Amino acid sequence: MLKRSDIVVFSVTALAVAVAAVLQFTGGNDILRFVVAAVALSLLAMNVSTGTEQVGNYLSSGATGVLQAALGNLPELLVCAFSLRAGLIEVVQAALIGSILANSLLVLGVAILVGGIKHGRMRFDAESPRMIVSLMMVAVAALAFPTLAAELHTPAANHEDALSAACAILLLVMFVASLRFTLSADPERSLRHAPPKPDVTAQHWPLWLAITVLVIASLAAALVSEWFVSALEPAIHTLGISQAFAGIVIVAIAGNAVENVAGIRLMAKNRPDYAMSVILSSSLLIALVVCPALVLLSFALGGAAFTLVMPPLLIAALLLTTLTSAIIVNDGETIWLEGIALIGLYCIIAASFWWG
Amino acid sequence: MLKRSDIVVFSVTALAVAVAAVLQFTGGNDILRFVVAAVALSLLAMNVSTGTEQVGNYLSSGATGVLQAALGNLPELLVCAFSLRAGLIEVVQAALIGSILANSLLVLGVAILVGGIKHGRMRFDAESPRMIVSLMMVAVAALAFPTLAAELHTPAANHEDALSAACAILLLVMFVASLRFTLSADPERSLRHAPPKPDVTAQHWPLWLAITVLVIASLAAALVSEWFVSALEPAIHTLGISQAFAGIVIVAIAGNAVENVAGIRLMAKNRPDYAMSVILSSSLLIALVVCPALVLLSFALGGAAFTLVMPPLLIAALLLTTLTSAIIVNDGETIWLEGIALIGLYCIIAASFWWG
Amino acid sequence: MLKRSDIVVFSVTALAVAVAAVLQFTGGNDILRFVVAAVALSLLAMNVSTGTEQVGNYLSSGATGVLQAALGNLPELLVCAFSLRAGLIEVVQAALIGSILANSLLVLGVAILVGGIKHGRMRFDAESPRMIVSLMMVAVAALAFPTLAAELHTPAANHEDALSAACAILLLVMFVASLRFTLSADPERSLRHAPPKPDVTAQHWPLWLAITVLVIASLAAALVSEWFVSALEPAIHTLGISQAFAGIVIVAIAGNAVENVAGIRLMAKNRPDYAMSVILSSSLLIALVVCPALVLLSFALGGAAFTLVMPPLLIAALLLTTLTSAIIVNDGETIWLEGIALIGLYCIIAASFWWG
Repeated sequence: MLKRSDIVVFSVTALAVAVAAVLQFTGGNDILRFVVAAVALSLLAMNVSTGTEQVGNYLSSGATGVLQAALGNLPELLVCAFSLRAGLIEVVQAALIGSILANSLLVLGVAILVGGIKHGRMRFDAESPRMIVSLMMVAVAALAFPTLAAELHTPAANHEDALSAACAILLLVMFVASLRFTLSADPERSLRHAPPKPDVTAQHWPLWLAITVLVIASLAAALVSEWFVSALEPAIHTLGISQAFAGIVIVAIAGNAVENVAGIRLMAKNRPDYAMSVILSSSLLIALVVCPALVLLSFALGGAAFTLVMPPLLIAALLLTTLTSAIIVNDGETIWLEGIALIGLYCIIAASFWWG
Repeated sequence: MLKRSDIVVFSVTALAVAVAAVLQFTGGNDILRFVVAAVALSLLAMNVSTGTEQVGNYLSSGATGVLQAALGNLPELLVCAFSLRAGLIEVVQAALIGSILANSLLVLGVAILVGGIKHGRMRFDAESPRMIVSLMMVAVAALAFPTLAAELHTPAANHEDALSAACAILLLVMFVASLRFTLSADPERSLRHAPPKPDVTAQHWPLWLAITVLVIASLAAALVSEWFVSALEPAIHTLGISQAFAGIVIVAIAGNAVENVAGIRLMAKNRPDYAMSVILSSSLLIALVVCPALVLLSFALGGAAFTLVMPPLLIAALLLTTLTSAIIVNDGETIWLEGIALIGLYCIIAASFWWG
Repeated sequence: MLKRSDIVVFSVTALAVAVAAVLQFTGGNDILRFVVAAVALSLLAMNVSTGTEQVGNYLSSGATGVLQAALGNLPELLVCAFSLRAGLIEVVQAALIGSILANSLLVLGVAILVGGIKHGRMRFDAESPRMIVSLMMVAVAALAFPTLAAELHTPAANHEDALSAACAILLLVMFVASLRFTLSADPERSLRHAPPKPDVTAQHWPLWLAITVLVIASLAAALVSEWFVSALEPAIHTLGISQAFAGIVIVAIAGNAVENVAGIRLMAKNRPDYAMSVILSSSLLIALVVCPALVLLSFALGGAAFTLVMPPLLIAALLLTTLTSAIIVNDGETIWLEGIALIGLYCIIAASFWWG
């Protein structure tokens, strides 16, 4: 029923969570606490992802898609929600945009580099990545408007809550429409980035186990997210880095580490179109779901409002990144040099946020 | 000679103009006056368009193109000119950019949505739409410079009249060059977005009738435009909306209503490349002809100068819209989800201008 | 050994250098001094370029690529370095960005126009130009960050030296990686914009002559660059134009005149993909090599620091130009109208910098 590798993963995860708990309650070294919590959170994210896949074996492919969309970004959503409660608004903003940057520049860059080194010039069927990039462009343009309105001192600047809420609702409507699309059985009407997964059947869990893993991992993720956030502020302080840099680099990479490895591995296996779809739709979901969900959540929770009015440099980085990835994807061909260029751009953006 | 449907259209138009006249001179309810004037103007625009087509039967296809370009945007040009005279500069700016946004986002979005629902994933020969989008990108970049120079406080900011005039003249030069292109008989040298119109011969008017309809409709459009503008300001006041919102949404949609239906209908008939060409070249003409013509006209008329220095949020919206439509068109494929995304982006932009 | 045409070129160059020297040391009319120095510099640039090609006959194609990249932009680098020493920072900034604009708009526009007039609608294999444009987009986004960080008043604005140096180093890393790419013998891994040059063998120089020409021309270029710069400031003063306009138009066109003719000629010979690769990779080298090299050089030389924080209108022009050329190239097809549009955009940008 369970393979040895599953048992190893469970054990390591449990161990990491236990160590994180000990450090959390004994008040250990800030940096160590932060690192262990980050590792535990990544491992839990992997278990949530595996659990979702396993439950998916008992559901239609459409329902699996919905489940994945809902739970795949759960750890990130939890971390951001706890950070908001802790008043770390700057971290949350940077972590959200940073996740998109990390996916669309760093992960895509590494994937293209690895693929290019192994397979030379890669040509791919760009249909599905192009569609994702088109939707991304629309979503990012929409996401940018509250900040543009505020920065340009338009009358809407005095109504940033209302404008952000309107944008959030429209982004969620786009997301629901996209679900409707993903759910469609007709391949001509779907985004077609869900290829057959041949390995999954080999590791078929019974339903009770899949659900148990999913529930326990999700609950543990909620706990560890809180520890992660509580260690975040002292760690930032000790390391002497800016809130923005912590969000855009550390939280963004920690929050997306596991799912990102999948995309890079697919590229190494010479499946560039699927790899790009996986990497880019991860960015798309953050823009279409996580950002608007947090806005509406923050209104519901009260306290410090989290609006879509972000630091303008973040929005500029987001727009340039989206345009760059659109142009890179559109030519239906990659070389490793493009990978290096994307990684370089990511480093330059990160450097711009280094000073606090 | 005249079909029943023609007679119905003439009668309804005449009726609408008459009611608009009565309301205008009896000083009826502001909103009602405004709505009736808008309807009358839309109907007249349709008659101008039909008249142009009918006169075109007696001209070479090249000369027809020139005539269409000259008269197709006549009602819009008239409304803007009267609004300028009334000092409603903000409305004019918003209406011009709003017309481009309405075409490139709302109408294109609805067309893609309708096409996608009826025909599923649509692949199209993207050659002609891509060419239009390329030219649009250049025109929009050119259009943006006076605003950029002013916003960024460069020395040119003190010479906005001269810079705007220079940009207007260069845009008109591009337009004249594009006419030269459209007029070319050699299909390899033309934009090729003028397919055979099989239905037209069925409804062939004699020349005198075509010219009469064209002249009367144009003159009436001039009259009704003035009423429309005179009702616009009180209507804005009564409704409590901002000048910018009135321009970007109400005037833009009213001014382009009829020609827009054509594009959507073509998409429903599964002719996506022609539909996109029609919709996008309507945007292109506004950037290449209507905007610069109004600038030069305002210098000629004296009074409040209308320059290309616009509110920066309008220009940001224009740039993002153009980039988005370029990316959507470039992949040569549409799905209804892209339609929803475009409509969503239009709503978000409109929302940003809601507050006055 | 030497053809008549070679001897003519050498003689004319020597004459121009001599006249420039006489004017320089007799203190002739400012404008004349400037024009003659510009002509002499252009001719020397042509000789450097021919010398490089001739030396290349004795080297592997990879080493030739490195040599061309290193020496091709030498005159430009020299002019900028001398201008920096003379404190003409505004001219240098404008000349660098202006060179990219001149290549990507003016030269590309003229090439497309000429090609379109001679050959009608040109379809081309867009693979190599698209790749260059993708890299250009990344490089330009990276180049824009120091300015964005400064303009948006982020904390990084106080560290513009450090941020510029970091960006410069990362851009040079990209460049070195791209050399590694160009040098690769495997065509599947190279940028493939080095087609066979059938005419070169006809004009094969002995190695000693090639090296002599290269060395003498390079040394003379260093001398004449200094004269050019020393005449630049009085000429700007006499003509009454702004430093920015002088840089963006005059220095940029003078510095790229000769290599640009090559691209236009290739287009006229109906080799659009090669022509576009030549023109656009010239822009790419300025972004990847010349700009960062000058930044690091200015730190090494001390004196007025030259950072990547530029006037924002220059950066806006750069971004819009890069996006426009990406969209124009991506459709794999050109018509002469696009050429006119690009030239028009260049004129509008130049006009924005007219006032000082």
